[in-house]
Amino acid sequence: MAPVGSKRGILERLGAGEVVIGDGGFVFALEKRGYVKAGPWTPEAAAEHPEAVRQLHREFLRAGSNVMQTFTFYASDDKLENRGNKLTYTGQQINEAACDLAREVANQGDALVAGGVSQTPSYLSCKSQDEVTKIFKKQLDVFVKKNVDFLIAEYFEHVEEAEWAVQALKATGKPVAASMCIGPEGDMHGVTPGECAVRLVRAGADIVGVNCHFDPMTCVKTVALMKAAVEKAGLKAHYMAQPLAYHTPDCSCQGFIDLPEFPFALEPRILTRWEMQQYAREAYKAGIRFIGGCCGFEPYHIRAVAEELAVERGILPDASEKHGMWGAGLEMHTKPWVRARARRDYWEKLKPASGRPLCPSMSTPDGWGVTKGHAELMQQREATTPDQLRPLFQKADAKN
Amino acid sequence: MAPVGSKRGILERLGAGEVVIGDGGFVFALEKRGYVKAGPWTPEAAAEHPEAVRQLHREFLRAGSNVMQTFTFYASDDKLENRGNKLTYTGQQINEAACDLAREVANQGDALVAGGVSQTPSYLSCKSQDEVTKIFKKQLDVFVKKNVDFLIAEYFEHVEEAEWAVQALKATGKPVAASMCIGPEGDMHGVTPGECAVRLVRAGADIVGVNCHFDPMTCVKTVALMKAAVEKAGLKAHYMAQPLAYHTPDCSCQGFIDLPEFPFALEPRILTRWEMQQYAREAYKAGIRFIGGCCGFEPYHIRAVAEELAVERGILPDASEKHGMWGAGLEMHTKPWVRARARRDYWEKLKPASGRPLCPSMSTPDGWGVTKGHAELMQQREATTPDQLRPLFQKADAKN
Amino acid sequence: MAPVGSKRGILERLGAGEVVIGDGGFVFALEKRGYVKAGPWTPEAAAEHPEAVRQLHREFLRAGSNVMQTFTFYASDDKLENRGNKLTYTGQQINEAACDLAREVANQGDALVAGGVSQTPSYLSCKSQDEVTKIFKKQLDVFVKKNVDFLIAEYFEHVEEAEWAVQALKATGKPVAASMCIGPEGDMHGVTPGECAVRLVRAGADIVGVNCHFDPMTCVKTVALMKAAVEKAGLKAHYMAQPLAYHTPDCSCQGFIDLPEFPFALEPRILTRWEMQQYAREAYKAGIRFIGGCCGFEPYHIRAVAEELAVERGILPDASEKHGMWGAGLEMHTKPWVRARARRDYWEKLKPASGRPLCPSMSTPDGWGVTKGHAELMQQREATTPDQLRPLFQKADAKN
Amino acid sequence: MAPVGSKRGILERLGAGEVVIGDGGFVFALEKRGYVKAGPWTPEAAAEHPEAVRQLHREFLRAGSNVMQTFTFYASDDKLENRGNKLTYTGQQINEAACDLAREVANQGDALVAGGVSQTPSYLSCKSQDEVTKIFKKQLDVFVKKNVDFLIAEYFEHVEEAEWAVQALKATGKPVAASMCIGPEGDMHGVTPGECAVRLVRAGADIVGVNCHFDPMTCVKTVALMKAAVEKAGLKAHYMAQPLAYHTPDCSCQGFIDLPEFPFALEPRILTRWEMQQYAREAYKAGIRFIGGCCGFEPYHIRAVAEELAVERGILPDASEKHGMWGAGLEMHTKPWVRARARRDYWEKLKPASGRPLCPSMSTPDGWGVTKGHAELMQQREATTPDQLRPLFQKADAKN
Repeated sequence: MAPVGSKRGILERLGAGEVVIGDGGFVFALEKRGYVKAGPWTPEAAAEHPEAVRQLHREFLRAGSNVMQTFTFYASDDKLENRGNKLTYTGQQINEAACDLAREVANQGDALVAGGVSQTPSYLSCKSQDEVTKIFKKQLDVFVKKNVDFLIAEYFEHVEEAEWAVQALKATGKPVAASMCIGPEGDMHGVTPGECAVRLVRAGADIVGVNCHFDPMTCVKTVALMKAAVEKAGLKAHYMAQPLAYHTPDCSCQGFIDLPEFPFALEPRILTRWEMQQYAREAYKAGIRFIGGCCGFEPYHIRAVAEELAVERGILPDASEKHGMWGAGLEMHTKPWVRARARRDYWEKLKPASGRPLCPSMSTPDGWGVTKGHAELMQQREATTPDQLRPLFQKADAKN
Repeated sequence: MAPVGSKRGILERLGAGEVVIGDGGFVFALEKRGYVKAGPWTPEAAAEHPEAVRQLHREFLRAGSNVMQTFTFYASDDKLENRGNKLTYTGQQINEAACDLAREVANQGDALVAGGVSQTPSYLSCKSQDEVTKIFKKQLDVFVKKNVDFLIAEYFEHVEEAEWAVQALKATGKPVAASMCIGPEGDMHGVTPGECAVRLVRAGADIVGVNCHFDPMTCVKTVALMKAAVEKAGLKAHYMAQPLAYHTPDCSCQGFIDLPEFPFALEPRILTRWEMQQYAREAYKAGIRFIGGCCGFEPYHIRAVAEELAVERGILPDASEKHGMWGAGLEMHTKPWVRARARRDYWEKLKPASGRPLCPSMSTPDGWGVTKGHAELMQQREATTPDQLRPLFQKADAKN
Repeated sequence: MAPVGSKRGILERLGAGEVVIGDGGFVFALEKRGYVKAGPWTPEAAAEHPEAVRQLHREFLRAGSNVMQTFTFYASDDKLENRGNKLTYTGQQINEAACDLAREVANQGDALVAGGVSQTPSYLSCKSQDEVTKIFKKQLDVFVKKNVDFLIAEYFEHVEEAEWAVQALKATGKPVAASMCIGPEGDMHGVTPGECAVRLVRAGADIVGVNCHFDPMTCVKTVALMKAAVEKAGLKAHYMAQPLAYHTPDCSCQGFIDLPEFPFALEPRILTRWEMQQYAREAYKAGIRFIGGCCGFEPYHIRAVAEELAVERGILPDASEKHGMWGAGLEMHTKPWVRARARRDYWEKLKPASGRPLCPSMSTPDGWGVTKGHAELMQQREATTPDQLRPLFQKADAKN
Repeated sequence: MAPVGSKRGILERLGAGEVVIGDGGFVFALEKRGYVKAGPWTPEAAAEHPEAVRQLHREFLRAGSNVMQTFTFYASDDKLENRGNKLTYTGQQINEAACDLAREVANQGDALVAGGVSQTPSYLSCKSQDEVTKIFKKQLDVFVKKNVDFLIAEYFEHVEEAEWAVQALKATGKPVAASMCIGPEGDMHGVTPGECAVRLVRAGADIVGVNCHFDPMTCVKTVALMKAAVEKAGLKAHYMAQPLAYHTPDCSCQGFIDLPEFPFALEPRILTRWEMQQYAREAYKAGIRFIGGCCGFEPYHIRAVAEELAVERGILPDASEKHGMWGAGLEMHTKPWVRARARRDYWEKLKPASGRPLCPSMSTPDGWGVTKGHAELMQQREATTPDQLRPLFQKADAKN
């Protein structure tokens, strides 16, 4: 199915070997801007504050995004009902508003609209495939009505629910991307990334990959495992990555949710634009062609991805008029030693300080060790009681 | 002079002992959003991309700001001409657009419009007071025509230029705030914060303080020095602070400009919302009543200031509908150990990790030592040459 | 074969399930005391400065060691000849002096003497098994003549050479321990710890394990892999660990040699006594009963091992008269807040600061990445040249 | 008074502008070796374990020390009685044994014997000058009887007690050094380092300076303040520094005692040999000529001081036969990338990692802030109670 107007569709682009740049993390960016509540993380702002959502779409488009995802994360009816206080708008209104905003901005540039569904409370409370599919269907009806260009099932922790989602999305006849929020250790039941990918492709996904939960390099590594397994199974797919913009070397299999800093003290972990360029390059080298971001990705992070791959894509994003590759804009700074920083070598080598001498560099995730070794170090040891020790001290004293 | 409509003016508010919340850092926030170029740092986006500037004003208003500063930082004609490539809009057009945007949003809430001027290339190239005043005058003509509510002379490194600015602003008859970008060591000629403040008050400033260049606690400390000196001189003034949202324990007297991370790798230094609440409390305790932010301050940082001082101000900002004090929104999170983080005690005690084990916690500023001790440690020592050592080794060898 | 006098032998002790405490690292401790040269690392001090070696033996005995290893590390003739400058003493003299010193001190307490051989330059330069065995044989002749209680083949990076050593040692009829300097990734040819252990037991080793190169928890983990494989193969052995006293979370398979801090800037990595108690407990829980140390282990580290296992062993070491469990001695400190630190809970929870804000927490080993992810981050990317970018900027400029 | 035999005395050496190298920290080194108890910190080992004390003297002599301080720290009778359990030896026996050991080893090289007294419990419990002097006198009688070469009053926190000590020492007719354990902020009553030094010189001290409590660079800075004040007062003196071997950037005025890591988790703070060379150079440049160490200084740290000043002193220490300047011994290492580290440039630039990613780089001293800014950050804020917030939330809810 061709996208609205004359644009080439997602599969045409990926099929031709082109790089498709995704967008960044709406939920986290809009939380900082004051329109999303951390905890429920629901997207009612699409209806309540359309100007804020529209502006964020614009910024990602300007930064180089080729995909405007509808702001419909956690917008399934069962999730919206769970959020704790009454909403002014219905689920349908929110989903429709999100589609309209994405389309409005996509039409202003070279971007497609992708309708997105994510994991549901229904699955977690053990509802049947039929019931869960019904939940997805409500959103899909809106996406079909609003004629989005393709569909994404994203942020799934369990491959089974992801398969159900892919089947539901596939039924619309639109291209389907499937993205799990897992790392190299696999889904919550230990299904490996490779097996997850194979199952999703068999369920009908045209594009598979991961989003959220882990830092860019971990996500690239995970998708590489997926790609290897899909190819080994003799299947074909395209690959996507939309990672966090946070360093998470200390995560366990559940990702950044378990870090003590989640979600209100992740600032020191935010990647710089230069680290994002490294991510874009590594993703490209790993054969990933749909390259975007998730929580923590701000417009300048997406711009960094677009700038790193400018030669491959043959184009710089509009927002680069306010940047200059590798800090070139600094050549106009008033201080000479700042002007001296206008070069790739400087920023690539810099190891940025945290300014936080009382803080550690890694954390112990809740309920997990940093590594097995650390976990062992930290686990409680069988106590040696004073009563056990007393006779030993007496023996030692007697001797001295 | 009364503000437009029925609002109470800045001096009425401060005179009544009220807390006035400033806004955050437009230049840095809009750089990340793709509308400002790091290096020149000029605000032509007010004319080029009004929707982006308007949206940022809205977010700060929603976060609790009582002051919409016109986005006119570095908008003097001499600075705009220096920026390296031709602008589509004139200085007058940019300043006018900035005033219109600030007024439009201010009218949607309880905020005043403040027209701002900042230090000029003319002063740095040793122009006379007359010439520098003429530069300020061009912006002031716009501010008077657009009838802003009060004026701010901010980001001055030299007290002399700040005095000239205050005199020029005072001539309009509007209330005048004067804010220098200095730390406890004083201005670029070593004039102490106390003496700077006294001179600015004598020049006509109604409000004095600091902005930019240093982290919140350093700024509070600097303004406390100003206040003590003003009171000791038997003068009267109100006090303001608009610090960075970056931790800068390792800065020398020129502030964060000299840090190797400036401006593209400051991410690990960004303050959390909880650290901002601490800032707001300390500023309040120090007698500062105009409390805002500068570079790095995003809307959620201003919201944190407003939430910390909610009882004193008798009001929560609109954006708190999407927050909940001390992470209360997390009570609705799906994972129980994340719900357990919905409490003040958790976030106040947390020492956030950087996720960057290959990076240090502090940097050596360009051309300066972290502290005198560190500088000494790092300075080159007179080399001991191999020729000087050879006979000693021969003597030692002979002995063994 | 029974040890000299009435002492029970190493296999009797281990066979009875007793804990045998090893000694610490002579080479590194004596380097700091001025008697060993870093680089060659040879033990000629046994003959040159016997009083210094004797005193270190005494301190380890006093700290609780049950094993006095002869100070014969790298004391094979081929290694001694390689060391760069002429020695005053022959290899035989050095080996004999080392045996005499170990025996003299062992006789003052409950300790056995272990004669030790280590990997040879001959093997690394591809000599045959015959030639390498001849090298070992020279040291073994001394050990037999001096009637040591048992033998240790330690610090082998290649399992093949370790097997040759075990065969040579076994021929003396004395009990044989075999210890490789490998981590969980196995020997320099990638032979797993499990396979190494099985081969060493089959070659005749009574005790197998690891020493040096990695931190305590990594060594415990490696020996656990050895134990599992030996048991799976239906074999029987005792297990030993003599790790570094340095934290090495960032090591690659070659261990701490590759860290940039080796060997003269390892100070910030030194384990505290409390971390040593954790090591002792974990080693014990993993079924390791010969528990000692290698490079970096000072007498107080061995004392910590002995104190942690005091109840299991039924005895405190002599040196505990100058300690007190968990800092009890601090109860006599002059400052009350230091007296408050005389408790286990305080020291177990403390995360000690480095006092080095300009330093990172982990290093990149020479030629390796910290982890695969980091390696990828750091590897050079295919350069995008200015020539490739120029047309893109021109296109962008034309558009704006 | 001339020293025993033909050696030139301390004042002759310093008067001739020579560098005199002190020794390191006996109390801490012997605690790690198992002969001193942390908490009481008393030196009964001089009588109980003379071989251990003798060996440590030997190592410092071999490392280049020109001064063998008698191991009589905290050996005043009032302190020995306070230590919690009965001693086998009397104070007189301990002091005499310490003198004999120092003299025995001093006679084996170019070293003088210095008898030392330190602050007393009597002063802290407000005894009179007469009573405190009597306490000093008991030790001095031994020092005179044993004919030490000069006297040191060291580790005084209060200048008044230090003055009393100097007066008592001066009465013996021997040269007197006076060393306080203070930093740039001065003694426990805030008497500045400058004033302390002037008062000590006026009381009769020939040499003044500081020891213990702070890291080398802080001590150099403190002695520089002393020197400036003594010279400004028109007085004459020689200067000494014997700092910690621990980095203490986060100390408050009471020094490392207040750090949470004191005394059992200071490992990550230990200075490398290269950092010691920097200390030696800076001390020399500041005009300090008696350069030694205190707690944490091991023999290799003193060797580093002697090596840095080898050209100035015209001699390398004996222990350098086992070192090689700037890691030259590594040229004989088996691995080529380790051989590449045998150069000054490598070690001078290296920023050593801690291997402790869960630990901070600085600590908050007990009862003090890292800096004023940090203290403010950490102090408890007036709590905002839920009752105060409730009406605000209700107002906000009503509005939404």
